[in-house]
Amino acid sequence: MKHPGFWKMLTVAVCMALLGCLQAQEHQGHVSIILLGATGDLAKKYLWQGLFQLYLDEAGKGHSFSFHGSALTTTEKGQEFMAKVLESLSCPKDVALPRCAELKDQFQQLSQYRHLKTSEDYLALNKDIEARVQREGLWEAGRIFYFSVPPFAYADIARNINSSCRPGPGAWLRVVLEKPFGHDLLSAQQLATELGSFFQEEEMYRVDHYLGKQAVAQILPFRDQNRKFLDGLWNRHHVERVEIIMKETVDAEGRTSFYEKYGVIRDILQNHLTEILTLVAMELPHNVSSWEAVLLHKLQAFQALRGLQKGSAVLGQYQAYSKQVRRELQKPDSFHSLTPTFAGILAHMDNLRWEGVPFILMSGKALDERVGYVRILFKNRAYCAQSEKHWVTDQSQCLPCQIIFYIGHGELGSPAVLVSRNLFRPSLPSKSWKEVEGQPGLRLFGRPLSDYYVYSPVREQDAYSILISHIFHRRKGSFITTENLLASWVFWTPLLDSLVHEVPRIYPGGAENGHLLDFEFSGNQLSFSQQQLEQLVPGPGSVPKPSDFQVLRAKYRESPLISAWPEELIAKLANDIEATAVQAVRRFGKFHLALSGGSSPIDLFQQLAMGHYGFPWAHTHLWLVDERCVPLWDPESNFQGLQAHLLQHVRVPYYNIHPMPVHLHQRLCAEEDQGAQTYAEEISALVTNSSFDLVLLGMGPDGHTASLFPQSPTGLDGEQLVVLTKSPFRPYDRMSLSLPLINRARKVAVLVMGRMKREITTLVSRVGYEPKKWPISGVLPASGQLVWYMDYEAFLG
Amino acid sequence: MKHPGFWKMLTVAVCMALLGCLQAQEHQGHVSIILLGATGDLAKKYLWQGLFQLYLDEAGKGHSFSFHGSALTTTEKGQEFMAKVLESLSCPKDVALPRCAELKDQFQQLSQYRHLKTSEDYLALNKDIEARVQREGLWEAGRIFYFSVPPFAYADIARNINSSCRPGPGAWLRVVLEKPFGHDLLSAQQLATELGSFFQEEEMYRVDHYLGKQAVAQILPFRDQNRKFLDGLWNRHHVERVEIIMKETVDAEGRTSFYEKYGVIRDILQNHLTEILTLVAMELPHNVSSWEAVLLHKLQAFQALRGLQKGSAVLGQYQAYSKQVRRELQKPDSFHSLTPTFAGILAHMDNLRWEGVPFILMSGKALDERVGYVRILFKNRAYCAQSEKHWVTDQSQCLPCQIIFYIGHGELGSPAVLVSRNLFRPSLPSKSWKEVEGQPGLRLFGRPLSDYYVYSPVREQDAYSILISHIFHRRKGSFITTENLLASWVFWTPLLDSLVHEVPRIYPGGAENGHLLDFEFSGNQLSFSQQQLEQLVPGPGSVPKPSDFQVLRAKYRESPLISAWPEELIAKLANDIEATAVQAVRRFGKFHLALSGGSSPIDLFQQLAMGHYGFPWAHTHLWLVDERCVPLWDPESNFQGLQAHLLQHVRVPYYNIHPMPVHLHQRLCAEEDQGAQTYAEEISALVTNSSFDLVLLGMGPDGHTASLFPQSPTGLDGEQLVVLTKSPFRPYDRMSLSLPLINRARKVAVLVMGRMKREITTLVSRVGYEPKKWPISGVLPASGQLVWYMDYEAFLG
Repeated sequence: MKHPGFWKMLTVAVCMALLGCLQAQEHQGHVSIILLGATGDLAKKYLWQGLFQLYLDEAGKGHSFSFHGSALTTTEKGQEFMAKVLESLSCPKDVALPRCAELKDQFQQLSQYRHLKTSEDYLALNKDIEARVQREGLWEAGRIFYFSVPPFAYADIARNINSSCRPGPGAWLRVVLEKPFGHDLLSAQQLATELGSFFQEEEMYRVDHYLGKQAVAQILPFRDQNRKFLDGLWNRHHVERVEIIMKETVDAEGRTSFYEKYGVIRDILQNHLTEILTLVAMELPHNVSSWEAVLLHKLQAFQALRGLQKGSAVLGQYQAYSKQVRRELQKPDSFHSLTPTFAGILAHMDNLRWEGVPFILMSGKALDERVGYVRILFKNRAYCAQSEKHWVTDQSQCLPCQIIFYIGHGELGSPAVLVSRNLFRPSLPSKSWKEVEGQPGLRLFGRPLSDYYVYSPVREQDAYSILISHIFHRRKGSFITTENLLASWVFWTPLLDSLVHEVPRIYPGGAENGHLLDFEFSGNQLSFSQQQLEQLVPGPGSVPKPSDFQVLRAKYRESPLISAWPEELIAKLANDIEATAVQAVRRFGKFHLALSGGSSPIDLFQQLAMGHYGFPWAHTHLWLVDERCVPLWDPESNFQGLQAHLLQHVRVPYYNIHPMPVHLHQRLCAEEDQGAQTYAEEISALVTNSSFDLVLLGMGPDGHTASLFPQSPTGLDGEQLVVLTKSPFRPYDRMSLSLPLINRARKVAVLVMGRMKREITTLVSRVGYEPKKWPISGVLPASGQLVWYMDYEAFLG
Repeated sequence: MKHPGFWKMLTVAVCMALLGCLQAQEHQGHVSIILLGATGDLAKKYLWQGLFQLYLDEAGKGHSFSFHGSALTTTEKGQEFMAKVLESLSCPKDVALPRCAELKDQFQQLSQYRHLKTSEDYLALNKDIEARVQREGLWEAGRIFYFSVPPFAYADIARNINSSCRPGPGAWLRVVLEKPFGHDLLSAQQLATELGSFFQEEEMYRVDHYLGKQAVAQILPFRDQNRKFLDGLWNRHHVERVEIIMKETVDAEGRTSFYEKYGVIRDILQNHLTEILTLVAMELPHNVSSWEAVLLHKLQAFQALRGLQKGSAVLGQYQAYSKQVRRELQKPDSFHSLTPTFAGILAHMDNLRWEGVPFILMSGKALDERVGYVRILFKNRAYCAQSEKHWVTDQSQCLPCQIIFYIGHGELGSPAVLVSRNLFRPSLPSKSWKEVEGQPGLRLFGRPLSDYYVYSPVREQDAYSILISHIFHRRKGSFITTENLLASWVFWTPLLDSLVHEVPRIYPGGAENGHLLDFEFSGNQLSFSQQQLEQLVPGPGSVPKPSDFQVLRAKYRESPLISAWPEELIAKLANDIEATAVQAVRRFGKFHLALSGGSSPIDLFQQLAMGHYGFPWAHTHLWLVDERCVPLWDPESNFQGLQAHLLQHVRVPYYNIHPMPVHLHQRLCAEEDQGAQTYAEEISALVTNSSFDLVLLGMGPDGHTASLFPQSPTGLDGEQLVVLTKSPFRPYDRMSLSLPLINRARKVAVLVMGRMKREITTLVSRVGYEPKKWPISGVLPASGQLVWYMDYEAFLG
């Protein structure tokens, strides 16, 4: 071992030779970096090179280093492997060969292999580091443990580090974790909890190497440095859509044992593309170099993501995949995988900045080209008064404006940032990005390359080199915190669950895919643009589709019954309500609609919110049929459902909205607050004859309707219009319109859906007028009309 | 005169020859058509031909006709003129020349000229018609008076018709009116009132000849016949923009005496383009052939139009115009006209179907081409998974989809309906429209013509022929009712008024315009895309622009004062409020904001609604500083301003909105309803220490603030948090936060704007604490901060 003085001399030498700095820094302590899985593919390909780069960048700046490669391999084999890898390291282009050899030699001297398996091995490592630091007269700054090992090995290693290998007080510990971080919310939570028992949040650096890719890492700085242009543009008024795309030409051959478990969504979308999405969508922190602010804003972006539904995705699988799985995993000939190798996703952000802007995420294997990019396409806000044929230049404002973060590969072949010339000339850090001329004749995203300002990195850098440097400098903004990780799984898991049995569209692969995988969206729904010609993988037993049936008209309890599959039933009911509303407004100038809570009406609300442009909302008064005695902002409140699924999307004037006053004087349904009487008064004052134009009811499995339960002492008869009642279920206290009031309505619609209602439907069809036993049987409008809307499951079982 | 039997024979002959019908109809009565202004240009060019066409179309179907051309010309000259015009009439292409001569001869025999000026002339006409009908054994079906005369002549003619020339009972009267129908709301109202004193609404047919152009007349039938495709597409979710365009190459030379008074907006946009807009935007009636329904829906479309502001327009004037005016109207050399010959307008519909969709209306003279069209551009809802270079066909879903009603001229040279092939194959009435192949190589709207299904009329027809037929058949849907006319002027007049002194951009004319007239929009604002290089017409004295000044910081009444031009002041205040909100939510989880009514806050609301994406609305509680004792839905209500300008655009949860309870038990501010106490209780319950995070106040010219007026017996001191007060102005009764409550706030901002406030600003700067005299002087937050926001006019005068 060399004398401490030597180290100082060396750092000065490296410093002068490599960095041109003129005097050595104060010694900032010793850093030990332990690469676990040092003989693996990732280590071989990227990590050792990244560590070497770190050494080159940092060794002259006051720290001293030691690098420990470790694995389960025997010391001898490990050393042999490491020697080879270290020999193959490369220097930056501007370092001459002899100098490079020298530097590699220095790095090799600081690096050693060690077998790490048992807790004794970790204790020994700890001792060695401490001894060395002491021996060389250094002080310890910190330790980095880089986990380049499969996740099943995490726990043991983490335990050993925590118990035997933490540095002493004053020195930091950083552990670097590689994906996968679970395969759904539960497993990610378990893993996170486990790791959390060994490490502090601030000690963990979860790597998503996309965050180290130069074009991706440039997103926030670009947004920051071009604020003066982007402040007015980066929002729903100007952005047409955002595309976050990662296309591969390779397939999963040789990796199907991994791929079968993960599929494209877990492999690419849940992590890489979602991270990019948050960088594009987040509110830009005032200070983008504050990683705390970046992480907070990222988390807020996750929170604004609208939940995905089955219809938010289209899935594909390249034709050869199942065969590859059968071969590699020894599956029988009859085996067909449902694992998607292609996915298109439509995401939306529910905030004021992005409301309504489609975020398209797409990735797939065996596609026509290898390319990754983020494309922000702006709305065309211009009108060209002159005909195209007279355009003076080709850079008309009437052509699409876009900003593209070109991650790599594709026709450009390198990372780039592209900005339409008719948008603005961007500012990029001139030390690291340079403006370039593209190949003439090349077209990208519908326009010749000459239409863009094109910037590419002065020096192309590998993502891992960048991230290793960020770990060293504690730039946590480039890593996945536990909160962010779980937020991502919260977002993706329901979709993944809903897609388990979904049959992906089979595609031939490569350029032959043609337009087969093109997809389009309408509202929240994605679908392939082309009808499927042939289903190559048989799906699970196919049920008849709604369109196979017509709406059925019959009688139920001597009133008209309309029955259909759920989707059609809701559509029919929404149409009927609109027709009633239009008629009422035409006759009376307003429409008084009383709505029930619960889950069935939510589908109805969504239907009314999306499609019914002719609905006279401005003249509609909305009343509640019943309410739970909770504050209006409680998730259990019926009003909440109405607010979230209807009121947010239509324009009912504030004063036409009549929530039940269940919360007066900061109390819930206190008799003495006379909420029921107040509501009754309001109804009497505003609704002619207290006769609603339409009351929408449901029916419970016990025959209750509104919040009128069997044997209720109030509301089933008598003079009261609005009553307090008790429910057998939580929350027990309720407010409800009374049967006598309901029966004054011009029209009453009862919506009954789902198999759970089958029994009561049959029962109630046979009973007479017995509201005490079955309150629903007391719904008999005096002079109005009663119509039953039941889906086939409720009506036919 | 011929015997009635002859007429019957003739109609049969015409019928058989021309229409191929096999038997004559029952006689449906005699129709007299009186063309007033029969020797004018319009009559010569279009109307006689239209009447001849009517004769050809209808003579065989049971009516008999007589045609009376009238004018102020002497009978001799008139007859001579008419003979010439009638000789020049043309038959449809499929009528052979000899047959055509025969038909023209018949028409001429039915037509006569007569001098019509005095009431005696009209009486004589009436007698003649009656005599003829009687003589020929006919019965009278009705009379059509076609006013092809200048508007100043309307009243006299109308009076004469009404008093002397109405047909007898059982027969109808129709009067046909040609534009202009006034030049603003007032003049249009006067004209309408005048006409209304002579004619019933149902008797009047106001012509907008664009409604007779074949492509325009096809808009509603097209929407109707393609409902199955369009139902889901014709809305804000799918339509990117609508362009309604009418470009001319000619200029106004020779017509400047008219044009100077009207300009392009009155000449083209207020009538033609607005009519087209309503056809595109209206809710499609269930039955489009019901003209009552069409007119009703059209009126509703007008009502949904958002008001235009000065910023909604860009104006231009071709360079030679002022010179032409000087020459033709003998103006001095120093004269420069401000009349626009080019206008681009951005309109929006405030309804659920069209919210946010830009409707661009544009027209101009001396442009690069003559063309008229309506273009519905659809949002691109598709993502193509394959790179363009691999696209199999050129009709990818990723290319723009559009529907174009091509009114005429331009590169197609004829009316047409175009639908992108990647959209759907439309259905058009096959008798009147045929699919056509376009010229190869032709491009329209960014795509080759082969990308569209193209339909053109089987037989091109002149607009007037079509409209005359509609008048005859009482198809009122193709005409402008009084209500619709006034609705259009209600829409346009404020804009026209605001543009009176606006200096149009000068353009050279023709293809040389280049990109000079291109314009673009952001929010509601239109602007030319290119900076103006040179102002050729000097504008009225230019005031310094906001950007010429910085925000000024000073002290006022020992508190910080911020002063700036209005726009900057509002921007600064909005930023400060957002910062306060963010800080409050970070510290307390919520932000309690109390807002004043009035006009200055409205600009603030709009500012907050448009740009502040980071505002924590979901955690903001909105309170009112004061309220007028009117129902919340009254336009005078302060709450209304808040609702219209802020709440509609942001997402504050319903239960975080706290209007003042000025309307309880259907009464306004009744003491016994204890509204003030209720509001005070609500504040105490929700706002910690009743200390608002921010209270926004104004200051009246009398020194009042909130609704606390000088000498108010309540609210200036004491324990009450909320009080009823009296205003010296209507509405007298108010509810207001009290000074003691206001002074509990953490922050109070006082916004003072406009020259009107100059005096009180000076006065209040000098007085001490005298709330009885000047309530504003009592605003002294106990432990909070007071900041004054004054624009330069209020502060510096």
